[in-house]
Amino acid sequence: MALDATSLEALQARVVELESRSAIRDLVSDYCHGFDKRDFDRFLSIWWEDCIWNIGPPFGRFEGHRGITEAVRSVLWPAWRESHHLTTNLKIDFSDADNARSVCDVDCVGTLTDDPAAQIVGATYRDHMQARDGRWRILQRDVTIHYFNPLGGTTLSPPQNTS
Amino acid sequence: MALDATSLEALQARVVELESRSAIRDLVSDYCHGFDKRDFDRFLSIWWEDCIWNIGPPFGRFEGHRGITEAVRSVLWPAWRESHHLTTNLKIDFSDADNARSVCDVDCVGTLTDDPAAQIVGATYRDHMQARDGRWRILQRDVTIHYFNPLGGTTLSPPQNTS
Amino acid sequence: MALDATSLEALQARVVELESRSAIRDLVSDYCHGFDKRDFDRFLSIWWEDCIWNIGPPFGRFEGHRGITEAVRSVLWPAWRESHHLTTNLKIDFSDADNARSVCDVDCVGTLTDDPAAQIVGATYRDHMQARDGRWRILQRDVTIHYFNPLGGTTLSPPQNTS
Repeated sequence: MALDATSLEALQARVVELESRSAIRDLVSDYCHGFDKRDFDRFLSIWWEDCIWNIGPPFGRFEGHRGITEAVRSVLWPAWRESHHLTTNLKIDFSDADNARSVCDVDCVGTLTDDPAAQIVGATYRDHMQARDGRWRILQRDVTIHYFNPLGGTTLSPPQNTS
Repeated sequence: MALDATSLEALQARVVELESRSAIRDLVSDYCHGFDKRDFDRFLSIWWEDCIWNIGPPFGRFEGHRGITEAVRSVLWPAWRESHHLTTNLKIDFSDADNARSVCDVDCVGTLTDDPAAQIVGATYRDHMQARDGRWRILQRDVTIHYFNPLGGTTLSPPQNTS
Repeated sequence: MALDATSLEALQARVVELESRSAIRDLVSDYCHGFDKRDFDRFLSIWWEDCIWNIGPPFGRFEGHRGITEAVRSVLWPAWRESHHLTTNLKIDFSDADNARSVCDVDCVGTLTDDPAAQIVGATYRDHMQARDGRWRILQRDVTIHYFNPLGGTTLSPPQNTS
């Protein structure tokens, strides 16, 4: 039996959604890789130019690539000596083919510049992801920080090469 | 060359499996979002009515939506002041198109109602996921808790808005 | 309208890439399940025979299935009483259909054999994943350990069955 184009197009739309899920997941991962490994180009590439990054206290709310640049270079990287974000529980709900609301949770371990104690931060990210011309980026990320505390009696350091 | 329906159907079956993997991953995420953010409808929606939730000590074994409701509302939410589950390492093995065994690991940070110290819990979830009429839910979840301990000298609190 | 084989083949290639992403994600998960649950067959099955596992200090560099076997059985399992790896932030970039570079981050909580204190380890894995005859395995994994420290005042133990 010969097929008509409709069957293939229906299947293609399902493949596009799976690819969109993968692309959105990559944005969530590159947020961590870009920020923690201090790869600014990677970090900036996940945001639309007209984005909003609403971190809330103690850091603030930032708009556009200019705001992202200021937040990272002037506020956050100077505040952290090192940081390690682990994102999980990503759940994506599509509003339409080019817009998705997603939520994920993050656990961050790190050390601030002005305090030798290790810190733990737990937060939830709620995102508006948007595709333009087939490319997904973050349009808005709202951060809810659940806790941000020193990890009693713990400091972070890499293993020593004893050779 | 015209195609026959067989080629498209074979490809369609592969797309269905990828979609099933995505749906199962969503269940694992919504377990955390529903429980930690105290969204009971979200939490209940991941379980089949005839489910088993076998947490083991110190919490117990619960059956059906009635058991889930009792466990969450009468045992677990009262026990935890706050909890933050992070699930990772999800591995799914399909028994057939409508049944899968999956395993994932979880790290939970939280505070109990009757103890100000932060707690850390590490566990493994082993699940029987089942699709009925194309919809995936959890039929059985077995929990193995590896550790459940106070995090020495640490308490959890959100950052203060100093503005 | 009848379809030609080209349209279906193009879609098939996109499905293959999504399946490859799923298979690579499974390798990353089975590394943790195999190692932490001491399932050696599962752990070995993720590596190509001519693999390289470059852990760096304090553990070293291991080659081939012989090296993996030595590392796990003679070095790592004896060193750890228990370990719990949580991998996140997996980002996969394909060089071609059969080769991918991936990066992920890991948080490990565990206890060493010769020290009762809980340890936390944060690291990044950079991998060369390779498919041979349609099967994906790890060809090379380079580990960068960011921190490896005792978790002050914390020890790990499972809950007691008080029944």
